[in-house]
Amino acid sequence: MQHWVRFLDNEEEHFGQLDGQEIIVHRGSMFDAPEPTGTRRPLDAVEILSPSRPSKVIALWNNFHELAAKLNVPEPPEPLYLLKAISSVAAPGATIRRPASYEERVVYEGELGIVIGRPVANASEEEAAEAIFGYTCVNDLTAGDIINRDKTFAQWARAKSFDGFCPFGPAIATGIDPNALSVRTILNGAERQNYRLDDMIFPPARLVSALSRDMTLLPGDLICCGTSLGVGSIKDATNTVEVVIDGIGTLSNTFVQ
Amino acid sequence: MQHWVRFLDNEEEHFGQLDGQEIIVHRGSMFDAPEPTGTRRPLDAVEILSPSRPSKVIALWNNFHELAAKLNVPEPPEPLYLLKAISSVAAPGATIRRPASYEERVVYEGELGIVIGRPVANASEEEAAEAIFGYTCVNDLTAGDIINRDKTFAQWARAKSFDGFCPFGPAIATGIDPNALSVRTILNGAERQNYRLDDMIFPPARLVSALSRDMTLLPGDLICCGTSLGVGSIKDATNTVEVVIDGIGTLSNTFVQ
Repeated sequence: MQHWVRFLDNEEEHFGQLDGQEIIVHRGSMFDAPEPTGTRRPLDAVEILSPSRPSKVIALWNNFHELAAKLNVPEPPEPLYLLKAISSVAAPGATIRRPASYEERVVYEGELGIVIGRPVANASEEEAAEAIFGYTCVNDLTAGDIINRDKTFAQWARAKSFDGFCPFGPAIATGIDPNALSVRTILNGAERQNYRLDDMIFPPARLVSALSRDMTLLPGDLICCGTSLGVGSIKDATNTVEVVIDGIGTLSNTFVQ
Repeated sequence: MQHWVRFLDNEEEHFGQLDGQEIIVHRGSMFDAPEPTGTRRPLDAVEILSPSRPSKVIALWNNFHELAAKLNVPEPPEPLYLLKAISSVAAPGATIRRPASYEERVVYEGELGIVIGRPVANASEEEAAEAIFGYTCVNDLTAGDIINRDKTFAQWARAKSFDGFCPFGPAIATGIDPNALSVRTILNGAERQNYRLDDMIFPPARLVSALSRDMTLLPGDLICCGTSLGVGSIKDATNTVEVVIDGIGTLSNTFVQ
């Protein structure tokens, strides 16, 4: 298992592998034969960035058996998804501010993120599995009261694309099987979500295979696998929201009203 | 009025201003004080690319009075939109192929495209007008039978994000007022759409102002302003689809089943 991070050091962008509280700096491409530069940097001396720069962010709706049962919606025969604007990407640790134009509910959604490692189109499940570089933690923040505000058109993209509404990281974990893991979301110290990833309707390889029939996925692209039970509003003036997947890491952000 | 194009020449990417059948090559940024290099290239000696590389593509639904009336849907109080994956961007002149995974109706939608020229967030209409670099022609291709295939979730992003489903160009026209113009879509030589741009529910500056309250728009970002009457299927084995906006240009693509 390796954990890859992207970071700023003296205003230059770098990437590397976590080793305890240090980063083993690499060069080249994170996704294609990265080479150690021979230098290490302490984690607390650099500014951690989102671990990839996706060309697109795909976000799943209704991808967990338990949530579908609770919401009393049928389980979909194919993945249902929207796109989040990449301008919504935020770094681990970043402070995210309520949009000036929106006064209603902002909702956390702790999720598993899949990061793509190579271009992939029309892939079998086996090919799709090979195209997955690794996994990360995502908070798929949502302006909950926008989605159904208009009766004629569900505003998914808008509700989920405000600046800062897609923090992910802190690292991309490679060589792990997320099926054995759980996602926990902790709001101001209180656990609000704790669900198993083996409850996914479309698990990662099947999901990436299906998506790759709709569009070419590229290295760094992020797929937010959907959330499950326990979604809720962020209500305090200042909030700490953590998405924890043991084995992957803890994504922590501050949300300010 | 200027017409800006992006092109490949000897496998290198360049951009410049159209002057008849030649390109006045420029350097720097198309959006920020581009400088003439002193060279010119004949249009037919280079490969024309999409005129910008958007970080996001926003596509409007229900943005024309005439179409809203025909479809008998209420005119929306705010812009309604989805995001198209940028992997759907195609060049002027490109051959677009029916996705291998989809056998039903593929629909042309001739549209005005707005290209953003500077970062813009929470902008007034005046600021939004300043942030518009120029206008282009878009064919917002759509897999029409995917949108409502699932009863619980309208699949807008998926239906409009197949590879090649967002050809735009050939140029970005600056210094024009699209309000005086019309969009025509010509399928295999027959005019199928011919609608006036002064019929827009949210005209460009108002639209960009509203969108900029939802997310930061960046230079090169593309806003597809929505289509109006005359949308239809592309049925022949090989098709020429042209989106013509006099004063902007003619976007011509081949669609192959």
